[in-house]
Amino acid sequence: MNPIHLILIGDELLSGARRDQHLQTLASDLAARGAKIAGCEVIRDEEREVEETLRRRLASGAILILTGGLGPTVDDLTREGIAAATGVPLRDEPALWDALVKRFERAGRRLSPSNRSQALVPTRGTYFPNHHGTAPGLVFEPSAYPDCRVVALPGPPRELNPMWRDQALPYLISTYSWPQPPLEILMRFAQMGESRIDEKMRPLLANHPEISLSSLIRLARVDVAIRLRADFPNAAELLREVARETRKGFEEYIYECVESFGPGDRRPRDLEEVIADLLRARGERLAVAESCTGGLIAKWVTDYSGSSDIFLGGIVSYHNDLKRDLLGVPETVLASEGAVSEATVHAMVEGVLKRAGADWGVAVSGVAGPTGGTPEKPVGMVWIAVGNRDRIETRCHEFPGDREMVREWSGVVALRMLWRRLVDSE
Amino acid sequence: MNPIHLILIGDELLSGARRDQHLQTLASDLAARGAKIAGCEVIRDEEREVEETLRRRLASGAILILTGGLGPTVDDLTREGIAAATGVPLRDEPALWDALVKRFERAGRRLSPSNRSQALVPTRGTYFPNHHGTAPGLVFEPSAYPDCRVVALPGPPRELNPMWRDQALPYLISTYSWPQPPLEILMRFAQMGESRIDEKMRPLLANHPEISLSSLIRLARVDVAIRLRADFPNAAELLREVARETRKGFEEYIYECVESFGPGDRRPRDLEEVIADLLRARGERLAVAESCTGGLIAKWVTDYSGSSDIFLGGIVSYHNDLKRDLLGVPETVLASEGAVSEATVHAMVEGVLKRAGADWGVAVSGVAGPTGGTPEKPVGMVWIAVGNRDRIETRCHEFPGDREMVREWSGVVALRMLWRRLVDSE
Repeated sequence: MNPIHLILIGDELLSGARRDQHLQTLASDLAARGAKIAGCEVIRDEEREVEETLRRRLASGAILILTGGLGPTVDDLTREGIAAATGVPLRDEPALWDALVKRFERAGRRLSPSNRSQALVPTRGTYFPNHHGTAPGLVFEPSAYPDCRVVALPGPPRELNPMWRDQALPYLISTYSWPQPPLEILMRFAQMGESRIDEKMRPLLANHPEISLSSLIRLARVDVAIRLRADFPNAAELLREVARETRKGFEEYIYECVESFGPGDRRPRDLEEVIADLLRARGERLAVAESCTGGLIAKWVTDYSGSSDIFLGGIVSYHNDLKRDLLGVPETVLASEGAVSEATVHAMVEGVLKRAGADWGVAVSGVAGPTGGTPEKPVGMVWIAVGNRDRIETRCHEFPGDREMVREWSGVVALRMLWRRLVDSE
Repeated sequence: MNPIHLILIGDELLSGARRDQHLQTLASDLAARGAKIAGCEVIRDEEREVEETLRRRLASGAILILTGGLGPTVDDLTREGIAAATGVPLRDEPALWDALVKRFERAGRRLSPSNRSQALVPTRGTYFPNHHGTAPGLVFEPSAYPDCRVVALPGPPRELNPMWRDQALPYLISTYSWPQPPLEILMRFAQMGESRIDEKMRPLLANHPEISLSSLIRLARVDVAIRLRADFPNAAELLREVARETRKGFEEYIYECVESFGPGDRRPRDLEEVIADLLRARGERLAVAESCTGGLIAKWVTDYSGSSDIFLGGIVSYHNDLKRDLLGVPETVLASEGAVSEATVHAMVEGVLKRAGADWGVAVSGVAGPTGGTPEKPVGMVWIAVGNRDRIETRCHEFPGDREMVREWSGVVALRMLWRRLVDSE
């Protein structure tokens, strides 16, 4: 496989105005196809710089993917830079121009002369129409480097992401006759640090150098994918064996495990979706009572469309008065045990079950910091309760890290406890 | 000023496991010092690749900042790669080794032989002790390129960020005798798109090529900084004039405007902090009632330590039963007007003021999508209400974009309305 090199064009990244998302998007999708990004550069939006960077990289025989710099403004000179470096001139594409005229007419806007550049395409190569914006994706085929392609994609993620997945990636797969995608098993962990997962998996994979591992880490959530090329003898069985061994002892932390062995495999779900599916199947509904997480868990649950089937809502009882008045936590409990206590979160779940009329309740109360800690209740100490009318479980954790980390871990731990209860009571 | 080049080392970035944060952190801090990042590369964690990349960049006379690859594992060979490229050998630093031994003793952990590498420092150059981890920062002074420095920093943000701000950046400033930082005025916009801000500011800055502009964009929040070198004639007055012109007609969207003209200037605040300060000064408290935002606003308000002074809590009334039972929205209103209506959000504010005993209330109800839209109430339609016992204001918006964008914009608009009410009623 030709090495793939990514070139991000944009002064906005180098000035700190925006944070790049494309490297991670493309890298993950390529990994799922058994391909890799060999390197990545961020450069300024200048024709000379685009041209020089491309010349250097073309000589190395790489597939070059460029993002950004295809807008209509005079600052965006990417396409001229690519034309110069590849020796592939641009031409007007009437079909693109017509589409542009129609698009602007519909929107009641006037085309400016600079929009003309957005109907230019390479004379050798192809282009991808943009269904979410005006700049098409461009593919240049430099005659001096017949193995290379330069693929230029628009910068805004909502234009790039669909164009990349639906047009550019399929183009690369067919042009370079990439082999079948590797078989993959994805395991999603909650409340388990990456280092513990790594410790467990390294020895398992030591005997299987043919299996590749990649991970995606979002604080208290870690996704691990193991992959093996489809034509390896017993590929599916080998992957299943490694997944089985990985899961031993970790069952309570892996909320999703999905095989991608061919078309028709189901999409991996997030923890909130797994919980929603379990609740939906039982016809039961959830409500939350949050103190230190301040609405984070409710926000997560409602990040997913369709959550209204299973989520009634929540009470953010940040102040103790609301724990008492809206959730019915007894004043005596608050006075004797304090807001961060087993008795309080227990009463918070009881209260939210009753007042929201929910089947399941989750409650969190802790010291998120950086202020508010005491020797008995230090920053990071969090009580969590989960339960239904039959039984409420409580647990206390001391989370390290800053306010954001404490809140994130609290939310993930609470949802993991709920998921386990739903699984165990099936 | 020497050009600055950033080299991010880590297979984790190229595989998609993590998203980089360092480019944005360093770029913003450097911009505030009047410096710029000329380019950035992401490379694999391999000694040869580190060495080759450095050799190429050293010849260009750049200051090279490397991040990552300083851990104790065998994969991390960055320091050897730098030593080879710069021709500056490494030596044992007994002070670092002693500190490492003590650190491990305190933690009750055993040092492994590979930890030895974390006490190595360049024979020409300096190093920065790591107060949040084990790998020191390293500065190499290559004798062949007396103008260059290679600064290697540890990868984890909680180690890099303080080391960069407290040690590496001051080192660069003094080594290269950077001029005084430019004067800066920062304006923070809510509910105003970057393109409208750009349209307004471009003509203002056209006459002042000496003023630089940089921005930071987070959906419905845009920060704009204008900067001018301190020794420019009337620098402060010029910046103030541009800021004054920018603000004309935009007063209601700029919630924070801060001059950084010298030490002792105050830290810019986020919208939530500005609101908290206004409420704190009045001795008043807020509660929220959220439907489609599902806890997002409560989460934002409680992102800030000390919010318990001014925030009582909230009711996430995702299901209509909770709007009725917990907030007292009349069943007749829900039946005749629907959950997404002026009457409903008005009643939600009334309800949360009463039930939480708050001085100020905010309510949001809308169609976040992608499902649930109708011809009368399409996806993106959101009703927002803000008020106190005297007066409740309502507004309806139709936000473009996906579920996340609709929810983000809804939250920012609601907070901006609250901020305006607090300012207007002062």
